[in-house]
Parts: sequence; structure tokens; C-alpha cells
Amino acid sequence: MEYAAIRHVADKSYCYALEKGHFLFRIQVKKSDIRRITMHYRDKNIPVKFHDTRKSVDMKLVATDMCHDYFEADIRFEVLNLRYYFELEDMDGKIVYYTNYIFSDVKTENIDQMFNCPQELRESDLFETPEWANNKVVYQIFPSRFATSKNVDEETWYKAPINYDDNLQGDLRGIIDHLEHLADLGIDVLYMTPIFQADTCHKYDTIDYYKIDPSFGTKEDLKELVEKAHKMGMKVLLDAVFNHTGTKFFAFADLLEKQENSKYKDWYYVEEFPLKWGWGEKPTFKTFAYFGGMPKLNLKNLEVQEYCLNVAKYWIQECDIDGWRLDVGDEVQHDFWKRFRKEVKSVKKDALIVGEVWYYADDFLRGDEWDTVMNYPFYGAVMDLVAYGGITVSQFAERIGFLKGNLHKKTYPLMFNLIDSHDTPRFLHSAGNSYDKQKLAAAFQLLSPGMPMIYYGDEYGMLGAQDPDNRRGMYWDEKYQNKEMFAWYRKLIALRKEHVCICKGETSYFSTDDKNGILILTRENQQEKVTLMFNCSNESRKMSQYAGMTNLISEDIFDGTLQAYEMVILKA
Amino acid sequence: MEYAAIRHVADKSYCYALEKGHFLFRIQVKKSDIRRITMHYRDKNIPVKFHDTRKSVDMKLVATDMCHDYFEADIRFEVLNLRYYFELEDMDGKIVYYTNYIFSDVKTENIDQMFNCPQELRESDLFETPEWANNKVVYQIFPSRFATSKNVDEETWYKAPINYDDNLQGDLRGIIDHLEHLADLGIDVLYMTPIFQADTCHKYDTIDYYKIDPSFGTKEDLKELVEKAHKMGMKVLLDAVFNHTGTKFFAFADLLEKQENSKYKDWYYVEEFPLKWGWGEKPTFKTFAYFGGMPKLNLKNLEVQEYCLNVAKYWIQECDIDGWRLDVGDEVQHDFWKRFRKEVKSVKKDALIVGEVWYYADDFLRGDEWDTVMNYPFYGAVMDLVAYGGITVSQFAERIGFLKGNLHKKTYPLMFNLIDSHDTPRFLHSAGNSYDKQKLAAAFQLLSPGMPMIYYGDEYGMLGAQDPDNRRGMYWDEKYQNKEMFAWYRKLIALRKEHVCICKGETSYFSTDDKNGILILTRENQQEKVTLMFNCSNESRKMSQYAGMTNLISEDIFDGTLQAYEMVILKA
Repeated sequence: MEYAAIRHVADKSYCYALEKGHFLFRIQVKKSDIRRITMHYRDKNIPVKFHDTRKSVDMKLVATDMCHDYFEADIRFEVLNLRYYFELEDMDGKIVYYTNYIFSDVKTENIDQMFNCPQELRESDLFETPEWANNKVVYQIFPSRFATSKNVDEETWYKAPINYDDNLQGDLRGIIDHLEHLADLGIDVLYMTPIFQADTCHKYDTIDYYKIDPSFGTKEDLKELVEKAHKMGMKVLLDAVFNHTGTKFFAFADLLEKQENSKYKDWYYVEEFPLKWGWGEKPTFKTFAYFGGMPKLNLKNLEVQEYCLNVAKYWIQECDIDGWRLDVGDEVQHDFWKRFRKEVKSVKKDALIVGEVWYYADDFLRGDEWDTVMNYPFYGAVMDLVAYGGITVSQFAERIGFLKGNLHKKTYPLMFNLIDSHDTPRFLHSAGNSYDKQKLAAAFQLLSPGMPMIYYGDEYGMLGAQDPDNRRGMYWDEKYQNKEMFAWYRKLIALRKEHVCICKGETSYFSTDDKNGILILTRENQQEKVTLMFNCSNESRKMSQYAGMTNLISEDIFDGTLQAYEMVILKA
Repeated sequence: MEYAAIRHVADKSYCYALEKGHFLFRIQVKKSDIRRITMHYRDKNIPVKFHDTRKSVDMKLVATDMCHDYFEADIRFEVLNLRYYFELEDMDGKIVYYTNYIFSDVKTENIDQMFNCPQELRESDLFETPEWANNKVVYQIFPSRFATSKNVDEETWYKAPINYDDNLQGDLRGIIDHLEHLADLGIDVLYMTPIFQADTCHKYDTIDYYKIDPSFGTKEDLKELVEKAHKMGMKVLLDAVFNHTGTKFFAFADLLEKQENSKYKDWYYVEEFPLKWGWGEKPTFKTFAYFGGMPKLNLKNLEVQEYCLNVAKYWIQECDIDGWRLDVGDEVQHDFWKRFRKEVKSVKKDALIVGEVWYYADDFLRGDEWDTVMNYPFYGAVMDLVAYGGITVSQFAERIGFLKGNLHKKTYPLMFNLIDSHDTPRFLHSAGNSYDKQKLAAAFQLLSPGMPMIYYGDEYGMLGAQDPDNRRGMYWDEKYQNKEMFAWYRKLIALRKEHVCICKGETSYFSTDDKNGILILTRENQQEKVTLMFNCSNESRKMSQYAGMTNLISEDIFDGTLQAYEMVILKA
């Protein structure tokens, strides 16, 4: 038994309330090292001789990554303090007890040697995530390039390559006019990158947080958009860019003008006066990525916090939006996000808060900051497996297992699973423009627990290398659209919704065949059972033992052959 | 190399600011598995071709526990985001790179594959602990039994066994009269268990948080006590009992009288009306340890929070106390302690906040709740090694290493290291009344980094089994005093202060001999170097190679023999 890999901490990351009186416990062990884990527990304060409260529960293996297995148990109790310890049995049948950070060969009855879980403490950390959001499908829109209500000629709209500053005249009215497209695809949540007044086409350099960019429309347009989306059953998220502003934002403009004498001196991180920036030079103030056009807001300043919190609440109250995606979330301090959560949820209890972080970011996801995060580790895993073929299906599964094993049980079904975004090349491009590979990647995305986030146009097989090429005008003209791709996305989304076991079921069977690039998993709930089979190789594979089952995607009988990069959903 | 034991998380527990621009990074690996760890780092945003910011630092092994080695590096930088990864070399010379939660055999130059540390985020989590408290010596007083200014006859004061309710008439004036004793011993901090009005002699069942218990004295007495202590260079801590009140506290009294109709209904956790409790019965409301006499306050109620916070500030403002020890700290919710820290520090910036938790409690010690905690894991280790002889010196060192490896660098020198308290039997009792064992245990306590907390009377070798016997009247009469014990405590405290390398130096040599029960460690700084040698066995041991050095305790030349349970501090 590898003791050094066994990890449980009696804190809220390994032991937390799912609801009042209902608790989840997790423990990590070395992969394939432990056959069985039993958790023993009892009331700390009641002596066994008065009333025997001792109970035991077998823990379930719920995730596996490269090095670890993760076991969990969820139990119900009402006590002041729960005392507990683990009994671990390795593959050779050796039994070890893990008690209060100490290993022992003998079972203990001494409550001082057990881990402690104070019920009230854990329950006070209980948090709610928006019920409506679990496993919903998101669509990301880059408003200046998605759709326009203006008279824009085809050549301008569809020209490629595109330049950073090309103004394609996309607007909110254009989005409103195409909501039906989203509904048809099966979208539940629409997320727009910034729409407030700014100079660039991406609008991440805000001039006025209280004004819709005039090229996009008006507050009334946003109201109408949200209202119509809501009527169609869709939620709407906006992009909160509070890490930095543009240089024309009133506070920075004042600072530029008055320098040391500006009353907004403490709204930014000025390192030296006069303010200076230029290409290839480090600005004399903190910015986003040393880019002078995006001066970093000083959110340690409570006045600035207040300003940003008011913006966040204003758009919920004015236009009824359903949440915020937080730009450069990890460069903004935790205590601001803690306030942000409280304030935002105070005006809309079930608003969704989605951070942008490009890596595993559990420390923002403890229930008092964000609800979820853009799942770039998922992106990386899909890229490496499908686009680049640089990892095996086992390695892919291990990377996903890391997230499942480590993230909070309430967070996992909210993860924004993406295969590309406005900040990456289109998946299709990374995959050498292989539509088959995109379909496979989309299948991983659309058939996993979490909130798949589709980047606009992926459903039509839009092309695009890195920024700005990934932000082309949306393929509204049928001659550019890959209809098969659209059908694939539409079908998988529909199946995801119809067969809830796909995302919410238990994984009752799982196998990886690295040599042949085959990943198979069976998910089931009380109603049904389906098997997902992914061929991640560039050759067709015989899977004769599955022949005769129904492929829910094609609605045909599966003939036992998986084409290169093919994916099927089988049902007996 | 055991990958499964390697742990680094890019969050504030493994990567944090020590001060602006100065950061600490830690990584955990399997014990004795890794020969060298180098951390490579660079600016995320500046391409190497423009300016090569790449640097490397060898990490230092700083702690070892049963299963793990802990390595750390502290580095200085000014960047927006630091990207970094680890290069690990195992005992066979095999080199592996640990990058963004993935292991690799090849070095990477791809910043997307590195861990990320946003400087501003980490600096915003920077926290201060009271500078004055580092490594200071604490003395715990149980006021009703420590000293009295009243005319109490000897028989009453010194009688044993003592009963729970015996009123020995201890008071604040008595403490004031004996401050000289504490100063003589070398005490820096005086911590008193509760002194507010309550029925019991321990006063943990508060009736009035704004009133000193009449048997103890008045607010003026407390003022005088604090003032005199301050003049003598001592700080004063009080006991904050906010988990629960007594049943005569005004809110609970009102609730008892008016039941459902009380306006204090939400100040407690009432599970069923009418309120009922009795011996062996679970009360119909939440309490401390199912004990009806201590109803649990509902600190989810902001009104109750406010009440308690005001109490905490009141005594600082009125009597200039220097901090609070938090009773049953782990059964009170985190968000209350977060507010508590802010409010208390707002009235006294360097107030010390010490939680009571009986186990490893890192999640209260992230810088936004408590400064430190009563170190019961230390207590357990000393008990098991010295009192019971149930573990080896290596196991003892591993238990301490667990704390050193896991606790925040700023927290470790503040840990309240104890060998007993008002809640345990006297160490002497647990050690079969062996004064030699107590001297050895005290040596571990008084010569370790942290804040040793001496339970009143231990310095005179006071006897006492479990509560109430551990709360006898203090041995003021010389005929009860063990003068040798007093000299031992006094000397070790003096040496601790005179030779700062003992607690603050680097450990340049460390060895354990389990067979002979010998633990040796050398601590040094730029000024000097001393060797601490502990014989934890019940037989004398020849340590001839050290003969001829000066034993700083006895001020004699060490003759090369360590008696059973003897401890020496040697200097060349």
C-alpha cells in the first residue's frame, strides 16, 4: 500500500455538506492500489455505552486519473461532531486504518484518534449553485462578428483572412434575429463577449460600462434580446471585464490628463508618473499582459470594487440578464469575487457566475466565489487526444478523471466544457481542418457532464486559425455551411437532453484500448442504459461484439464497424 | 519515482506571498524518493525572444513526515503572471518534469503547460501576523484556582482531590499580585480562561459578556492587570466563548421564559419547543457536547454575530487586552471568524487570535481567520513519545514534520505548543508522575519554534489527573513546589531567548536513533550554533563524541553521558 499517496484532509475540500444533514466524504489513494475503503463513523460526544452510534459505509470509486483513484461516500447524520476514520484494504488483502493523519494497523475506538467533522461548521459552508444551469448547453457569441441587422455586403462579411479591426457591423438586433437558430440547435444559454462601449471590435477595452456600444445597439435592444431569449427558454450571460478598462474609461482618462493630481490615482496601479506605454515597452502602470491599452483596475480600492459591483448589479436589474462570465478571473483578487458573488446573488438568486481561468482553478470554486469556470483543462485534453493525437485515450480519461476527482460535486456538472473559443484557433483548424475530428471532439464535449460551450459557427464547421481569423463573420450563407456538422451538433444535443443518463447517469462500464484508440463507456440510470463508443484513431475498427445494437445518432443498427474518428451511442 | 505522492497545487496553500514581491513555493514528494527539485520560472507574457526572463532555483528540503518530504523555494519577482514548473530528480538520477498537473520526461518551453501564479492575486492574499508574538512564551491561567487576594485558608486552597465546584476564591487581584512570578519565569504572554460572569468555576457558561465575574473582580482590576503586565513587557489574552452561552445569559433566559414567543428565538438552534434538557437526554436545542447548560449560539444570525463582535472589540478598547483565544473554535463557522478577524484587527492591528482546535486545522489558518491555534497535535506527539513511550523518536519527528511541512510559513512560529492544559490531565500525571519525563517534555516544548504555552503550575511540578484534579490551587507554598522544575523551566526559557538560533535558526543537522531513543538536532544562525540532544529512553546513553562541549543548561562541560530522559543543549 502506498501510504504517501493517501490523502484526506478534514476540511471542506474533502468533507462537505451537499444539503442539510447530508455530507460527502472523499479520499484519494494511489491508482489501482486499494481494493476497498470503508469509512467508519460515530457521534463524538455520545459514549458508546450509552448509545452506540457507530456506523460504517463502503466508499465508491468515483474517479481515476494518472496516479490516483478517488473514493467517496455520501452519508446522512445529525450530530454535533462526527468522528470518522478509514479502513483501507490493498490488492493483497492487507488492511490499514487511516485515522487523524496517522496510519495504524489496528482499529481504533479512541475518538481522539479519529478525523473530526463538525456538522454546523460544514453546513455553514453549504452553497447553492443555479439549479437551472446543471448540464445545460451554452453558445458563445462574439457580437461584432455573429450577425448584423445592417446592410453589410457579403464580401465584407465573409472575407478571409480577417484583420483585428475589421468592423463587420455585427449587432444585438442581428443576434435577436437569429435566436431561432440557437433554439433550433438546442441551445439553453447564450453567452456574449463584451457589449459595452469600447474602441476595439472585441470590446475588452471598456470605455463605458453603463452603455451598450453604439455599433451593437441600445439598452432597449439588450432588454428585448433577453426577453425574447427567456421566452424561448434560453438564459443570457454577459462578459464582466473588471480586471482592466480601456484607456478612454473616465477614470483612466482623468488620470492621463491630471496625472498625480487625478482623484482616480488609486483606481489603477501606477508605478511611475507620467503614465507611458508603447509597443515593446513595459507600461509605467499595471495592465493586462503589459498591454498599455488595458490598464489594470485596482480592485483593492473599495471605491473601485463598489463601482464594478454596481455595474454587475445594474445589468441584471435593468435587463434581467442571468449571469456573468468573468474575464481574466484569476488575476483579480479572491476577496473581490467573494463580494461579487454576494452582491450579484442578492439581486438574482440563481445568477450564474463563470470565471475565466485557463487551468485547474479549484480555489475559486469553493462555493463562495464562482459557480464554475471555462474548462480549459478539458479543452487541452480534447486537443491533445483528437486534434494532435499526442496522448492515448487512457491519458485523456485520466485528465478528465483528475477534474472529476478533485472538483466539488456541485461544480462538476457546471463546468464550461469547450473545444475552442474566441481566444483559441477554431478546433477545426487545430485538427488540420478534419471535420471527422471535429465531430469526434464535439461528441466528447456534448456528451460529457458539464455545460458544453459551443463557439459560434462551430456547428457549421467554420474555419479559422488564431485570432483574428477565429473571429470571422458567421456562416449565414448556406454555401459556407457544413450541414452535416450542424445535423451532428443538433442531434447530439437532442440526444443529450432526451437521454438524461448520458450526462447524469452512473458510469457502469468503462474501458480504454490505447493501441486501437477506442474509448467505451456505459452510462445508466434507473430508466435506461446507453453505451458511448469513440474511435480516436485514424483507422476503422471492428467492434463486432456491439453489432446489432441501435446507434441512437444514425437511428440505424450498428454494423460492428467504427470508422476512423467515428463515435456512436448504442442502446440494446 | 512515486508520482502519486507528488503534490503541488497552484493555489494559495502551495504558493503564496511572504511580502510584496517575495513568494514561497512548496511541493510535497514521497519521503526519501527525490534527490533534487529545481523550480524553473519565467514571466508569462514576455516572449523569450524579446527578453529572456527564465530563471531556476534549487528547492530546499524543509520538512519530512511519515510519508513525505516537503521542499520549498522563496523567490522574488515583479511580473503579472509567473509561469513555473518543477524538475525532479530521483535517487537513481531519473529526471521528470511536473508541469501544470502533468508529468513529462521532457523539459517544456510552452508556457501553456506550466503552472501559473498571478502576482496580484497572490499578493492580495498576503496577511500579517502579530510580529510581537513570534516564538513568544505563553502562560495559561485558570483564574479561579491560580491566586487569590482573599483570605483563603491553606487547607481549602491545597486540598486534593478537588471537586468541580470547589470555589477557591481565585481572582484578578491575585494574578496581579503574582505577575512578578511570571516575569521571573520569563513569560511573554498571559492567557486567562474565561473571566466573565458565569456560574461555574471555569466560567465557560457565560451569563454576562460585559461583566467580569464578581468573584474575580472588576473591570478596573482587569485594566490594572493589563496595564501592569504591559509595563512588565507582557501581553494579555482572554478567552472568547462564542460557540455557546450559559443558560442564564439574557437571550437564553428570555427564550426559556417566553419559548416560541421570545425575540431571541433565532439566537439559538431550537429543535423543538418547549426547551428541555437533562442528564443523559439530548437537549431540544443545539448545545456544546449535548450539555444543556451550554446552549449553542446561532452565529448564522447576523444580530448574534454583531453582538459577539462588539464584545470582542469592547474588551480590547476598554482594557487594552492583546487578543483572544477562541473556545471550541472549530464548531463555529468560517464566515464568522473571517468577520471576527477584520473587526478585532480594526481596533487593534496586532491583536493575536488563537483558535482552539484539537487536530490539524489548516483551514482556519489561511490568513483570513486565526493567527494560530492551540497545538494539540504537538501535545499528542509529546504524550506518545515521552509520557507513554508509544512511538519512536523518528515517529515523533515525523508528526512534527507534518505540521512544519503543511502549515503556512507565517503560522508555524505562532503555534501554541502545549504538553497539557485545563482540558487535559497534567503532563506529570500522564507520565506517571515522573519529573524527569516532564522536564524532557518541557524541553521539547520550550525549545521548539512556536509559542510554548505553559499551563499554570507546571513550572512547580504540580500534580493533577483529569478535570477537576488538573485545576488545583496553584502551589504557592514552597513546601509543594518542585524548585528544580522551576529552575529547569526558567533556564530553558532564558536560553531560548538568549540563543535565538534555538528557535529561529536553521536545522543544519538532524538525527534520530530509535533503538536508543536519542534525538539530536543542531540549529544555527550566522552568530552561533547549538546542538540539542534528547534522551527519550529510560536508560542512560553514552554520547562520547559530544563530551567536552559546554552544556548551556548546567553551564558545565558535558561528560558524554545522557541520563535517562536527560536533555542537554551543547555548544562547542
